[in-house]
Amino acid sequence: MNDTANSHPVMKDVAIGLDAAGERTEFDSMGEVKVPADRYWGAQTQRSLLHFNIGGDRMPKAVYRAYGTVKKAAALVNGQSGHLPGWKVDAIVKAADEAIAGKLDDHFPLFVWQTGSGTQSNMNVNEVLSNRAIQLLGGTLGSQHPVGPNDDVNMGQSSNDSFPTAMHIAAVTIIDDRLIPELDKLASTIETKAYGWMDVVKVGRTHLEDATPLSVGQEWSGWAAQIRAVISEIRHAREGLLELALGGTAVGTGLNAPAGFSVNVASKIAELTGKPFVTAPNKFMAQGSLDPMVRASAALRGAAVSLMKIANDMRWLASGPRCGFGELKLPANEPGSSIMPGKVNPTQCEAMVMISIQVIGDDTATAFAGSQGNFELNAMRPIIINNFLHSAAILADGCEKFRTYSVEGTEIDRDRIQSYVDNNLMLVTALSPVIGYQKAAHIAENAAATGSTLKAAALSSGFVTEAQYDKVIVPGNMIGTGLVGA
Amino acid sequence: MNDTANSHPVMKDVAIGLDAAGERTEFDSMGEVKVPADRYWGAQTQRSLLHFNIGGDRMPKAVYRAYGTVKKAAALVNGQSGHLPGWKVDAIVKAADEAIAGKLDDHFPLFVWQTGSGTQSNMNVNEVLSNRAIQLLGGTLGSQHPVGPNDDVNMGQSSNDSFPTAMHIAAVTIIDDRLIPELDKLASTIETKAYGWMDVVKVGRTHLEDATPLSVGQEWSGWAAQIRAVISEIRHAREGLLELALGGTAVGTGLNAPAGFSVNVASKIAELTGKPFVTAPNKFMAQGSLDPMVRASAALRGAAVSLMKIANDMRWLASGPRCGFGELKLPANEPGSSIMPGKVNPTQCEAMVMISIQVIGDDTATAFAGSQGNFELNAMRPIIINNFLHSAAILADGCEKFRTYSVEGTEIDRDRIQSYVDNNLMLVTALSPVIGYQKAAHIAENAAATGSTLKAAALSSGFVTEAQYDKVIVPGNMIGTGLVGA
Amino acid sequence: MNDTANSHPVMKDVAIGLDAAGERTEFDSMGEVKVPADRYWGAQTQRSLLHFNIGGDRMPKAVYRAYGTVKKAAALVNGQSGHLPGWKVDAIVKAADEAIAGKLDDHFPLFVWQTGSGTQSNMNVNEVLSNRAIQLLGGTLGSQHPVGPNDDVNMGQSSNDSFPTAMHIAAVTIIDDRLIPELDKLASTIETKAYGWMDVVKVGRTHLEDATPLSVGQEWSGWAAQIRAVISEIRHAREGLLELALGGTAVGTGLNAPAGFSVNVASKIAELTGKPFVTAPNKFMAQGSLDPMVRASAALRGAAVSLMKIANDMRWLASGPRCGFGELKLPANEPGSSIMPGKVNPTQCEAMVMISIQVIGDDTATAFAGSQGNFELNAMRPIIINNFLHSAAILADGCEKFRTYSVEGTEIDRDRIQSYVDNNLMLVTALSPVIGYQKAAHIAENAAATGSTLKAAALSSGFVTEAQYDKVIVPGNMIGTGLVGA
Amino acid sequence: MNDTANSHPVMKDVAIGLDAAGERTEFDSMGEVKVPADRYWGAQTQRSLLHFNIGGDRMPKAVYRAYGTVKKAAALVNGQSGHLPGWKVDAIVKAADEAIAGKLDDHFPLFVWQTGSGTQSNMNVNEVLSNRAIQLLGGTLGSQHPVGPNDDVNMGQSSNDSFPTAMHIAAVTIIDDRLIPELDKLASTIETKAYGWMDVVKVGRTHLEDATPLSVGQEWSGWAAQIRAVISEIRHAREGLLELALGGTAVGTGLNAPAGFSVNVASKIAELTGKPFVTAPNKFMAQGSLDPMVRASAALRGAAVSLMKIANDMRWLASGPRCGFGELKLPANEPGSSIMPGKVNPTQCEAMVMISIQVIGDDTATAFAGSQGNFELNAMRPIIINNFLHSAAILADGCEKFRTYSVEGTEIDRDRIQSYVDNNLMLVTALSPVIGYQKAAHIAENAAATGSTLKAAALSSGFVTEAQYDKVIVPGNMIGTGLVGA
Repeated sequence: MNDTANSHPVMKDVAIGLDAAGERTEFDSMGEVKVPADRYWGAQTQRSLLHFNIGGDRMPKAVYRAYGTVKKAAALVNGQSGHLPGWKVDAIVKAADEAIAGKLDDHFPLFVWQTGSGTQSNMNVNEVLSNRAIQLLGGTLGSQHPVGPNDDVNMGQSSNDSFPTAMHIAAVTIIDDRLIPELDKLASTIETKAYGWMDVVKVGRTHLEDATPLSVGQEWSGWAAQIRAVISEIRHAREGLLELALGGTAVGTGLNAPAGFSVNVASKIAELTGKPFVTAPNKFMAQGSLDPMVRASAALRGAAVSLMKIANDMRWLASGPRCGFGELKLPANEPGSSIMPGKVNPTQCEAMVMISIQVIGDDTATAFAGSQGNFELNAMRPIIINNFLHSAAILADGCEKFRTYSVEGTEIDRDRIQSYVDNNLMLVTALSPVIGYQKAAHIAENAAATGSTLKAAALSSGFVTEAQYDKVIVPGNMIGTGLVGA
Repeated sequence: MNDTANSHPVMKDVAIGLDAAGERTEFDSMGEVKVPADRYWGAQTQRSLLHFNIGGDRMPKAVYRAYGTVKKAAALVNGQSGHLPGWKVDAIVKAADEAIAGKLDDHFPLFVWQTGSGTQSNMNVNEVLSNRAIQLLGGTLGSQHPVGPNDDVNMGQSSNDSFPTAMHIAAVTIIDDRLIPELDKLASTIETKAYGWMDVVKVGRTHLEDATPLSVGQEWSGWAAQIRAVISEIRHAREGLLELALGGTAVGTGLNAPAGFSVNVASKIAELTGKPFVTAPNKFMAQGSLDPMVRASAALRGAAVSLMKIANDMRWLASGPRCGFGELKLPANEPGSSIMPGKVNPTQCEAMVMISIQVIGDDTATAFAGSQGNFELNAMRPIIINNFLHSAAILADGCEKFRTYSVEGTEIDRDRIQSYVDNNLMLVTALSPVIGYQKAAHIAENAAATGSTLKAAALSSGFVTEAQYDKVIVPGNMIGTGLVGA
Repeated sequence: MNDTANSHPVMKDVAIGLDAAGERTEFDSMGEVKVPADRYWGAQTQRSLLHFNIGGDRMPKAVYRAYGTVKKAAALVNGQSGHLPGWKVDAIVKAADEAIAGKLDDHFPLFVWQTGSGTQSNMNVNEVLSNRAIQLLGGTLGSQHPVGPNDDVNMGQSSNDSFPTAMHIAAVTIIDDRLIPELDKLASTIETKAYGWMDVVKVGRTHLEDATPLSVGQEWSGWAAQIRAVISEIRHAREGLLELALGGTAVGTGLNAPAGFSVNVASKIAELTGKPFVTAPNKFMAQGSLDPMVRASAALRGAAVSLMKIANDMRWLASGPRCGFGELKLPANEPGSSIMPGKVNPTQCEAMVMISIQVIGDDTATAFAGSQGNFELNAMRPIIINNFLHSAAILADGCEKFRTYSVEGTEIDRDRIQSYVDNNLMLVTALSPVIGYQKAAHIAENAAATGSTLKAAALSSGFVTEAQYDKVIVPGNMIGTGLVGA
Repeated sequence: MNDTANSHPVMKDVAIGLDAAGERTEFDSMGEVKVPADRYWGAQTQRSLLHFNIGGDRMPKAVYRAYGTVKKAAALVNGQSGHLPGWKVDAIVKAADEAIAGKLDDHFPLFVWQTGSGTQSNMNVNEVLSNRAIQLLGGTLGSQHPVGPNDDVNMGQSSNDSFPTAMHIAAVTIIDDRLIPELDKLASTIETKAYGWMDVVKVGRTHLEDATPLSVGQEWSGWAAQIRAVISEIRHAREGLLELALGGTAVGTGLNAPAGFSVNVASKIAELTGKPFVTAPNKFMAQGSLDPMVRASAALRGAAVSLMKIANDMRWLASGPRCGFGELKLPANEPGSSIMPGKVNPTQCEAMVMISIQVIGDDTATAFAGSQGNFELNAMRPIIINNFLHSAAILADGCEKFRTYSVEGTEIDRDRIQSYVDNNLMLVTALSPVIGYQKAAHIAENAAATGSTLKAAALSSGFVTEAQYDKVIVPGNMIGTGLVGA
């Protein structure tokens, strides 16, 4: 099907864009379709636009940028194996590079709710790159000549293997570029705060109730440790995404792709991206399931679960200013109320909590969809990549804003914190090894019932002398020796 | 705080739009903020844009259009009670009408992930309507004079009562305008098909396995009945949304709103919308929880659960064309594969399945968020209204496309359907009342094991005569008498 | 297949129980199976016990008790129509009455994870009632004579219609007997408290932050209103459960059931239970979906969402005793800590929160399963009824314990509550209509920044006189006039 | 508080059990409580039994067996450090060994819905081991002497650190003992089948529609690969569970535990269990969150997602016998229908699908609960460990039954499979590289429209010669070369 190498057209330097108005005729196997003359897309994209104009959810641009890499790598490997002449490779690669750079974003208009294989988005890419290559080669748009969407741009590929490949590339990219860096910065910010407050003793709270003391720094160190573990888990999940389906073609057998294509194209994608992508070890799993995406989504959910705890702790500790816990003072970024003058609210924490819940909801959809594969295809790809990229984006952006506009500027109210330490009946715990749990309990219960200080109750109990009490009940001695606890 | 009625400015007919470049200075209680000179919004909107630039999720425009009704109704009631002079009322009403009509959409840019009360979106509305009213009255933008965002546009209101009111109005609107009409049309289309095929006998299937027969029309009638029940349930959930929090102000007590405001403003909203809104019977519930929204979301989920079953049935019954069930022929709207020529896929069904799963995921987030209220406020409002409107929109659009591009054009393969009826061993069930279950079982088991026809196995068993067999085993007599079953 | 009425066996008064050791031989269409000699069940039950010995989840006994009503009603209707002789009816009815009363519970051992139609549990019932009837009639156990499990006990029925019928009966029963009464008692208890504290002014809190005041009783009234709405919603969902599939037999057409069976048997079930059950209007929906169960599950989830908010509010308001909000004093039912002497925790609230989360998890499984029907059967019945009954039971019991051991004994700390009222800067809100929002904001911000009282800040601002201040800033005047708010 | 070593009681060989009737008086810091005289438990267990009699969910016995290891290890380390005399250590160790062996199971009756820290179950263990040690040492039950529940059995521990430690031990145990072995056996069984059928060519299916061929073995290899990846993921999640909170005591600081306790006791637990447990690197995370459990739950969910796909594929491929796909023949383990004689259903597949959905529901509850920690404690432990152990158990048992009673006995219908291969129009795909996609599409479309064979349509198109066709269209050449695909 390839044109002879002898008489090939020469690629020219034509800027992106179609200076045409009205409509152009494109065709596919079902016939002709009119498309907007200023767009590169073809018949199948136009059909999809009509049939799937559903809601406002568009296939994320990140998918198309990743697809650029897929098409580029495939063209290069097809060129190297002699299946695609060099001049076609060059034209496709140039167009693909433009897609990778986001310069063709406006030509990828399709909706998320489309065919479950992502075929329509794959064809959108094939059509756009085909027409852009045709333009570069001086051909006629819509002619599918000399570079065809199916026979050339899609050579050796199927949506069934290329779409999940693009999914994995897009997912790894946002993890590397946005999510892990933002999580890391947030953890670092919290760690810095933790070190700064490592010796500020405060009341601990379990079951929301006063408990034995710890330091402010220790409390913050726990939050940082949660985020560090989240990062580690996302890195682990990312490994599963490094395995690419490409080369399996229609059902995993590699029909119509040359021997070695899967290994070579994964290697090429690794080279182009600088990320250690490899070919998936079993193509029937890689195309019949989306298990690695489900696992990656679970890692995002893990982030949400941890971040929700942290954001909740922060806003509760900041509650008040006068009728709440009041230990933390969050930055006041905006007036909090349209009716209550001077009110300040923990809005960044609230946004983070809502983001966390949304990520959990997105993940629910992903897991459900992940379970619904049939035979050689899981036809739930658009919903899964859309939810994954959505979750990753709001997590990353949310962490950035949460850090910048709340965590970094958070201060502590040392007086309030100290007053709680002074009043905390659970300091009695340190007496337990001395006088036994039951006697200690009676002291605390008596103080609570009478409203007396712990010391007064302790001394009046007769179980302990003042000297013993003063030696044992020293909050600063009750927090152990390190930032990470026992 | 109201200007005297004597010397009030006169409203002019100024077109929407600010013909200015660069920035304008706005202020709030925290100080001055620069905003784009061509936008109506003020300081708090601008602060939110900076602090909450998270992901791509913007507060749905439907919320602002509903908020237009809230502000209009409040202004009218405040005018009637003498708290707001008529010329202010007129200006606010005109601006609000523009918001209702969507003409101010470009001035409502905020993100979903913001303060959990929706205060920033409320202030966005207050600021835009204030400045638009100021413009109409010939004042200086950003002066908050003569119409202030807090004191006038927000008079007698808090975000805490007005935002959930706008949520309910927006939710009822999409239910009435889009969701129920589309569900109704889909049900009607299915019902029409059901009547058309009410006498076409087909094999029933339970556990995916051949079972006793029914008619094609009966099978379709079950789908229609599911959708009819869904509509009924959404109507029921809508009733809960008719109760409005407005009038509760900050915490439900109605502080700063005049007596009767809650009842009057609900009545006014009912008048303006033509929908039977009423004031919520308990404002502490109405502001401290979002329970009616959670219930409405559950109704959408119910739609998803039903539609998923229907779409799955259709695509399985259409599987093939030669190696599947093949009873249904769905319209071929587009080429199905980038690699397999001539392939046709059940893409509308797949989109509907994905939509259903997404709605279930959205609903998970909504229920979770609904449980996270504290004290006098559930600060999870943006996530809930965003998920609700998203789900309603993709359900409505999805139903429309599913109906238009798949259900309406679906045909049946009568030959295939008849061949299954002829081969179905479970016709033996009709023999059970005659010869008993155990003997009938042995006949069917024998036919299955030997590959013989049911009749051959029945006659060779000696349990039944040919005359008996021919009288009893008549598939057309086994489907009862009506479209809805026994 | 019916024995002649002339020579029928006579029913004797034989106590429940099989005084036999070792094994007994039973049979089904696949052959003979040994069963424990002291159990009534037959071959199919025994096969299921072997093949589905999975985890510890057993089909709830409530399903079998409901099935007793199904079998009794079917026998009576089959007797009235002449399909089953009276002496068989009598024996089946007597056995069914024993099942209804729970006296045969030990003979229903099957696991939840079995066939998705519930056929094995239906056959368990058929086998047990058959053998019990045989025992009563002096026959030989395992002979299936004179009362057979399929031909007599299951006459005119299929698992496909009878199992969802039993599901609905069991679900309505627990709603009526346990869930609604316990929710009602909890609401009443909260209402009583609300009335008792209707005039105790307290600080309101929005975004966890100090807000304008309300009364303790108003806060509690919001919780009660939530529960009242939950009850109303469960009642609505219950209506959907009143529609019974019975009569549809295998696929909804009613094959092998006489004309009128579906209507008559629903009427009989209504008579037997005293509940207004009716035949489902569309049997293909009633058997191909489990939509009414999904909706009922959503109603339970709604209860969970509301109860979680209430339990959370209570435990946060009770946090302390000295370093938290400390407004409420919950009963101390047990020592709270194994290490911290004298600690008291909000354990009933925690249990209620966990129950709420579990109900949400159960409901997720139910909705998912509800979406997975295919063709004429949703084969996800055991998981759905198990989750529903589980959720209903822990909600009902949880409400009972929560009420009895926590809500009823909850007291308020009036001193703490008053001290918050005195310190609350958000009282400034009442100045807003007098001096405008911006000036009021500056007063509050100044008080917060300097730590002064609101009054001092107000007077020093010059915006308000002392007389004005004292007239406007009266917390008790800020809570409106009723228990339900504006 | 320790008795002197000189005059200590001597441990006797007393069999487990209390030969007493009626009640015994026990006490705790709140006073005296009557307990059943034949049970070892004490006052706090009895209080919990009364206050939390909710539903039928009991704390899994596996938690108590794991707690036996916790108490044994703590006693040994406390003995080595000189805090607990050897004779007390010996008695506690003997009692703990009995708990580990399950011999004290009947003495651990508490419900899941209890205090969120698990304190009541910890105290149950403390009380039972205390009384059992007292019995062994000849003391008086209920005297808390000479071995006290708090001061001795709970020495150096809190529920806050010991309960999550027991959770992790119990979770790792079921993973090692049941879940991974069963997943491994299932994968092996599928792999064996895959190898056996590696050359049987069949029609591929994407979007449920006929696609290019693959071999039966390849399809099965994809399922096996999914399970292998699941195992790998569970092993990864298990690593997080190896980190133990023990030593953090009340809030993570290690108050009342000697220096080095956390490291030493983790080391001792590793020694006792033979599993590489270590002390958690940050105790504030380890007690304030349950993140490692949430991640482990996600790994179980991953298993569910994969197993659901596999079970669904199997039952759809087995659908029929005459009116479905009919490629697989599953073992007939039981009669499938109470009304349709001779019916056989894919019941093991259905059970596996339901189990998968339940695991997803359980995991939803776990993730939700995991997000709800506050400050120094996540008080959602009972719900999480109960769901985790439940999911792990039904997955393991489900895999065993699914393998034993369905997968191992599954056979293929070679004739049916071949007939599909012969009729499959998507073989045309192999013509695409020869004649181009569009021409190939027209051939397939024509064959579909006219009902002709692919060959007839190809030849009549004129695009290909018979020789070309016969060379290219060889299904056996289209499946690549290996079991794992391209």
